[in-house]
Amino acid sequence: MINVAILGYGVVGSGVYKVITENNDVVSKNVGDEIKVSRVLDLREFPGDPAEEVLTHDYDDILNDDSIDIVVEVMGGLEPANTFVRKAIEKGKSVCTSNKALVAAFGTEILDLARAKGVNFLFEASVGGGIPVLRAINESLTADHFDKIYGILNGTTNYILTKMSEEGLSFDTVLKDAQERGYAERNPEADIEGYDACRKIAILTSLVYGRFTDYEEISTEGITKITNNDMIFAKAAEMEIKLFGLTEKNEKGFYSMVAPFLVGKEDPLYAVNGVYNAVNLHGDMLEDVMFYGQGAGSLPTASAVVGDVVELAKNKGKVLPFGWTADKITLSDINEYETAFFVRVNSGDAASFKNSFENVKMIEAPEITGEVAFITEKMSRNVLDARLRDIEPLQVIRVN
Amino acid sequence: MINVAILGYGVVGSGVYKVITENNDVVSKNVGDEIKVSRVLDLREFPGDPAEEVLTHDYDDILNDDSIDIVVEVMGGLEPANTFVRKAIEKGKSVCTSNKALVAAFGTEILDLARAKGVNFLFEASVGGGIPVLRAINESLTADHFDKIYGILNGTTNYILTKMSEEGLSFDTVLKDAQERGYAERNPEADIEGYDACRKIAILTSLVYGRFTDYEEISTEGITKITNNDMIFAKAAEMEIKLFGLTEKNEKGFYSMVAPFLVGKEDPLYAVNGVYNAVNLHGDMLEDVMFYGQGAGSLPTASAVVGDVVELAKNKGKVLPFGWTADKITLSDINEYETAFFVRVNSGDAASFKNSFENVKMIEAPEITGEVAFITEKMSRNVLDARLRDIEPLQVIRVN
Repeated sequence: MINVAILGYGVVGSGVYKVITENNDVVSKNVGDEIKVSRVLDLREFPGDPAEEVLTHDYDDILNDDSIDIVVEVMGGLEPANTFVRKAIEKGKSVCTSNKALVAAFGTEILDLARAKGVNFLFEASVGGGIPVLRAINESLTADHFDKIYGILNGTTNYILTKMSEEGLSFDTVLKDAQERGYAERNPEADIEGYDACRKIAILTSLVYGRFTDYEEISTEGITKITNNDMIFAKAAEMEIKLFGLTEKNEKGFYSMVAPFLVGKEDPLYAVNGVYNAVNLHGDMLEDVMFYGQGAGSLPTASAVVGDVVELAKNKGKVLPFGWTADKITLSDINEYETAFFVRVNSGDAASFKNSFENVKMIEAPEITGEVAFITEKMSRNVLDARLRDIEPLQVIRVN
Repeated sequence: MINVAILGYGVVGSGVYKVITENNDVVSKNVGDEIKVSRVLDLREFPGDPAEEVLTHDYDDILNDDSIDIVVEVMGGLEPANTFVRKAIEKGKSVCTSNKALVAAFGTEILDLARAKGVNFLFEASVGGGIPVLRAINESLTADHFDKIYGILNGTTNYILTKMSEEGLSFDTVLKDAQERGYAERNPEADIEGYDACRKIAILTSLVYGRFTDYEEISTEGITKITNNDMIFAKAAEMEIKLFGLTEKNEKGFYSMVAPFLVGKEDPLYAVNGVYNAVNLHGDMLEDVMFYGQGAGSLPTASAVVGDVVELAKNKGKVLPFGWTADKITLSDINEYETAFFVRVNSGDAASFKNSFENVKMIEAPEITGEVAFITEKMSRNVLDARLRDIEPLQVIRVN
């Protein structure tokens, strides 16, 4: 019998409870043993909920219970999650989590501690919700040098951008709609400013390269400055605007960023819409491989968490080679990262723009007056800014 | 030191050799040990090729070499692949392969033999080339009941359909172009008649449900009857035509088939074009999760094969719970499987059609004269055929 404790009975925690109990047949079969939720930790009461039977308000009930092998941390936030996770590991219990903030901030030390204690720390659900990308990176994608990883890592912002694009509504209008539908928080900052995507690309990068990448060093920009005119010009060029977390390692440097990007129809992520997430990896042998699915939501996220529970249960007593070392990756100056750029300018600046840049493609958008837009050839931001010396652009967005 | 033998130095075999030697750094690191190709089996000579050093024409050189732990079967075909694989397993060597025909025909017995001998038989590259979908099914997607699995599993036919759609060319013209570019064989039957996709959906289904599914029992139809008029009508309905391998398990039965399907823009596979493959699984908790990548080609396929080599090397002496049992799935009558249908008829039959069906959606395509097309509501093929009693349809294609 494998006993699991769930810390936090919120959106994800209640989902994990449901998946383990309602899908107990497949979960137990895949573990090769009976499995049950023996404890749920939460400060609240849940009268009438099946989890009431196993509810406790005291973490010591879980820590001191030697029959509990696996702790699921789905409380969110940095504390007490960080403290509770470390205490579980010190007691010889393996842990899995969906908490990207925890993993991005303290993952390196927690992985170290788990290794030292002969237990495991997994976090599939911390990136891309239900999408099984992290385990695939670790256990399948083992023959390539990866030079680029990028993804739509935040469902809130992808929902907003999709709706702005499809319906021509303003950012403010769509944000309000997203909040009403529960796709955006009352304080939406972490999503719309790109902070959530930033932690996720840091985790992905750390895992792909086996070395800690500090999310605090990743250049991060959200979607608050995207306008409908940008969308109209993008569409006229048969492109869409998406918020990417992106890492590229090339001969010039190691770059990581979160920012809006224009993408064309050939891009695997072009058609990823609404609340869906997707991660694309480019390897030197594999070329592109892409994973797509629900990036958030109670049951998809819980499904990935329980996938980790199964992996932990099957590997009790064995240290899985999953994670990264503290050998931190030095990120290069993002202003040296070369891409094409979409630049929107006042019509009066069009001639000056064409003079300052070779090989620009001008985008025709008949419904917009007074503004024009261009796509430049590949260059760094520093070079772009130098060429824009005499022009005040209305918008600058990288092109993938 | 892990020694690997490659059987067959063709397109995939030479790719496997290249991946293991050129990417030796990452492959060895992921194995946790030095790894090399110590033997290559082929009847041909390869003067000047690095593999010449380790080339042999005699399989006994490999069988009797106790330093060889892992055999990679990339010869293709049923024999001598089947015999060689079994001999390797009987000698206590683990095997991985890209050979879908072998796995579909003999996978059940080979898996059994491997289990009995305490070794492993893996075949990631047999479905979806480089896409790491099989290991994900087995090691990540372990918390759901899956009710539907479908995919674009054949790059040749997807290339043809994409080009027909984008350029308005006929099937025959595009097939010839595909052959010239090396995307289709001189004898293209296995691809265009759907036989290749059939073996792959059989393997996927067997793995997802843990029970052998016989590819010979899967209703299989290829793309040879798709015309440009079908494409024009589909586009007018904002849909595309793709060749799917599909399995659905619902309260009415267990259905598996290969056939062309119309798909709408909301479908994750709508935008999967050219030689790319994709597999979508729908689980009761996860909802849709999709994997996308290069379904064929020397290096992408080799990348997946080497991913298996790494997995075998890391798990030497341990029997991995990968595969299925001989408890065969009984497939239901495909003519009872309910979907919407696209039906193209002569204009003269339009009125009769509308009389025979409720709730049809007529597709307007101004450039086509003399024909009309409809999309019906969800029904079985048997019901459709009964309603079409007095009408000779020009085309019937299921709608996903």
